[in-house]
Formats: sequence, C-alpha cells, structure tokens
Amino acid sequence: MSQANPQTAYKDDNIFAKMLDGDIPCHKVYEDDKTLAFMDIMPQAAGHVLVIPKQKAVDLAELEPEYAAAVLMTAKKVMQAQRQVFNREGIIQMQLNGAEAGQTVFHYHVHLIPSSIHELGRHAVTQADHVELAKTAEQLAAIINA
Amino acid sequence: MSQANPQTAYKDDNIFAKMLDGDIPCHKVYEDDKTLAFMDIMPQAAGHVLVIPKQKAVDLAELEPEYAAAVLMTAKKVMQAQRQVFNREGIIQMQLNGAEAGQTVFHYHVHLIPSSIHELGRHAVTQADHVELAKTAEQLAAIINA
Repeated sequence: MSQANPQTAYKDDNIFAKMLDGDIPCHKVYEDDKTLAFMDIMPQAAGHVLVIPKQKAVDLAELEPEYAAAVLMTAKKVMQAQRQVFNREGIIQMQLNGAEAGQTVFHYHVHLIPSSIHELGRHAVTQADHVELAKTAEQLAAIINA
Repeated sequence: MSQANPQTAYKDDNIFAKMLDGDIPCHKVYEDDKTLAFMDIMPQAAGHVLVIPKQKAVDLAELEPEYAAAVLMTAKKVMQAQRQVFNREGIIQMQLNGAEAGQTVFHYHVHLIPSSIHELGRHAVTQADHVELAKTAEQLAAIINA
C-alpha cells in the first residue's frame, strides 16, 4: 500500500523521542518495557495524560500489534487512575493521525482527557503549572502502582 | 479496583451487541474473528467508521489485551483505506469512556473520523443517506480486502 504522507517519515529528534531517550524530562505517570505515560504540558483539561509506545511510529499506520495492545493496556491503567483521582467517569481517549487531523508531534500518542466531547476545548495556549502537573503525576502513579 | 460506574454494566440489548448478533443490519466495512467495522449512521464527517471488539466490554476499563490489539489493528486497516478513498491524511481516532464523556452506546467503540480536531463537529442530528453509506462501505472494504 502506498504511503499517504511520505513527508512525515519518523524523525528521531521529535520531542517524545527525546523524552524516551531521557534527553528531555517529563512528568511521568507510568512506564513499562513498551510504553511511557506522562502529563501533557499543554492540557485540554486537568489531568490530561499522554501514552506513547516505545516504537518509532509516526501514527496508527505504523504501529505494530504488540505496541497497539501495550498502549491500550497502559491507557486502561491511566484511565482507571484518572477516574479515581478526579472522581469522574468520563474520560476521552483520542489519537490524531496526520498534521491535517491536528497531529503536532510525529510520534504516535494517545490522549486521555478527563472531559466530555461536548466540552472539549482546544489545546491550552500556555503551559500548565509544573508544580500542579508533578502533583497530579504523583497521584496517578500512586494509584497505578498500588 | 472499585468500579467507577456500576450502573453501566454491560447490557446485551445495546445496538452494537445486536449488530454483532446479526439482529440489526449495518454497513459493514470489515470483519474478522475479534472485530467488526461499520459506517456510523450519524457521521461527524463523511467516511466516519466505527470499530468494535467482539467482546462484551462497556469501555476501555473492561477491554482485554487481545481485543485491544485487534481493535487497533482493524482501525489501522480502516484508516489506511479512508486515506485512499477520501484522499486525505488526517484521520481522528477517538473513543469515549462513560456517559459523562459523551458515550451513548455502552459497547466499547472506536471512532475513525476523516476530519481535523479543529473542525470536529457534534454528531449529526439526523441519519446519513443510507445509499451513500453503503457506497462508502463498499469502497473502503474493496481497499481493505484488495
């Protein structure tokens, strides 16, 4: 099958690749051998977490089955922790494929947003408070690792 | 871990369960032993497809690993077909957990919407034209099965 977007081939200098390499810090929520979960620093709602695979995949078209399963199982852990920390049932799981859809970092990433499709705003224009992000990451991690 | 929403335990009479049982027709795009993909009859954009697991899971909290992998691999097939049929790169993958997030059918389902996060509208209030839906389903299926 032809590649619909050859211009967005995976590049090793994207920000999530640098997080996986440890070159850039993140507010880590969970990590295992195939995935990493951390706080989105431009949250669309409080508690907005991103889950990424430890596979160099631009988008869903490149994701391998073992990483697909791992990403959703990590998302499941994070979502259950979000439900407890924020005492709410509603969590949006979203993943954008292609710049045309709104993807801005070209390493596959799943958004987990404690929000409603009817309330979902745009990405925040400014970064969230890092003290708050760190605190939320700790709360979520404590539940996941309990 | 306690169940955040015991009131939404899986019910066998939901519309997607009936589709899986063959009691309600759908515009099928793809089917394998673990998943079914079909046209959303209330599309948020042309070509809006839903992928469901053949597992009785209300939401991500109940999804088993093998079905998680299967759902995303079917979503990958559908997305690649959508890119060809609609000649666009941007595809939103979204899945709502809980009524509070906007979930209306309580069988886990992934939305694949040829759209942008900046354009994403509400679900259509009225059903799409079924002749058009059937035609799109055929186009997508032809590519997936090629």
